[in-house]
Amino acid sequence: MTDELEQLKKRWRVFAAERDWEQFHSPKNLSMALIAEAAELVEHFQWLTEKQSSELAGTKLQEVEHVIADIQIYLVRIADKLNIDVLDAVRNKIALNEQKYPADKVRGSARKYTEYHEEAGDT
Amino acid sequence: MTDELEQLKKRWRVFAAERDWEQFHSPKNLSMALIAEAAELVEHFQWLTEKQSSELAGTKLQEVEHVIADIQIYLVRIADKLNIDVLDAVRNKIALNEQKYPADKVRGSARKYTEYHEEAGDT
Amino acid sequence: MTDELEQLKKRWRVFAAERDWEQFHSPKNLSMALIAEAAELVEHFQWLTEKQSSELAGTKLQEVEHVIADIQIYLVRIADKLNIDVLDAVRNKIALNEQKYPADKVRGSARKYTEYHEEAGDT
Amino acid sequence: MTDELEQLKKRWRVFAAERDWEQFHSPKNLSMALIAEAAELVEHFQWLTEKQSSELAGTKLQEVEHVIADIQIYLVRIADKLNIDVLDAVRNKIALNEQKYPADKVRGSARKYTEYHEEAGDT
Repeated sequence: MTDELEQLKKRWRVFAAERDWEQFHSPKNLSMALIAEAAELVEHFQWLTEKQSSELAGTKLQEVEHVIADIQIYLVRIADKLNIDVLDAVRNKIALNEQKYPADKVRGSARKYTEYHEEAGDT
Repeated sequence: MTDELEQLKKRWRVFAAERDWEQFHSPKNLSMALIAEAAELVEHFQWLTEKQSSELAGTKLQEVEHVIADIQIYLVRIADKLNIDVLDAVRNKIALNEQKYPADKVRGSARKYTEYHEEAGDT
Repeated sequence: MTDELEQLKKRWRVFAAERDWEQFHSPKNLSMALIAEAAELVEHFQWLTEKQSSELAGTKLQEVEHVIADIQIYLVRIADKLNIDVLDAVRNKIALNEQKYPADKVRGSARKYTEYHEEAGDT
Repeated sequence: MTDELEQLKKRWRVFAAERDWEQFHSPKNLSMALIAEAAELVEHFQWLTEKQSSELAGTKLQEVEHVIADIQIYLVRIADKLNIDVLDAVRNKIALNEQKYPADKVRGSARKYTEYHEEAGDT
């Protein structure tokens, strides 16, 4: 992992230990906390058009920034509890994605995009 | 952002451009894709006890690793579309969290944990 | 509850008992199963435009129908485990909503819509 | 659909029309609103044990009741926009489930439970 995500991981270990929160931080519980944050993100966008969602500003943008931070924090935390290195995981997944969605086959097609996901058994 | 998340951001820009997927990657749509991945994580844990969720191994662990990667990838992508630097966001949020949940006040209490979230208007 | 949701509730009690699934059906676990189904719905729509999402047909529509059924089933199940009557809950909530979003004040405004939610402390 | 869900469907049509909210109620947007409510449910349970999740009372129980109502309301709404009858959908799905998870084969096994889901291509 990069120095910075590595530091985040260790900082959270201390943060949780100091507060005696380890007992709550099972991967199961953390997956729930993570999806609750992901839903915060969805809530910000649910009544906006796609275009509006690209043009956030001011308080709204700052709120979204906080939510993105929380998702990152929980993601590093859950990965730590499972001994998964987030960036190694990303490297492996990108290699897989490049095989699964070759640029020349899927260009510009939402239908193809989805079909590729489905054929590949991606859930 | 660290070199590695920065590289991931740029790699995805190329990956999406080559496939002509920019048109699908509004923050709104990406928030949907991200929560769908978060739900994959939840699905892996939903019928497990908390203890079992800590003891994943083999194929199951590898599947979870892929999902964690996908969440990281979509998170960097959505942040990029909103001109948010994920690690800056994390730094700011951690500073806020340390004010909101001081270690000496919240130690070991799930009730306190939740109340603190709620009082702080954290959603 | 209406006869039909009442029957669904009882049918699920038998279904779960016959399979010895009661042990897995804590409200916590069921909330995870429910959000995983909700995410299936989101996945069907994530790369579609709003307009396309209104024009589903064929297999896609049938898959969405199955997901809607699963959400209904888990919702009745979780309510049963908490001794909540879904339709009573709906009646109470509608009465609250009509106070919170008076038609003459919120007409046609997404901003108003969201602000009303937020002012009302609705999360 | 039962009389009561049928009434709910019609009441929401009026409610949305009076407020000029039809423009926001695409199935895509409604799926986002629904998952945001499902996440509210998850949030109530995320730091509780399974046992604690079964023993809600007081304000907490009432909040959960409101969330369950909101999920039901959005579910009926999204089904209406897609011309799906929720209770017909449930009937069809239950028939499928009884084939997929025969009581004598899946009794008491979480592993079997999950495997059955996966073999059946259930996502």
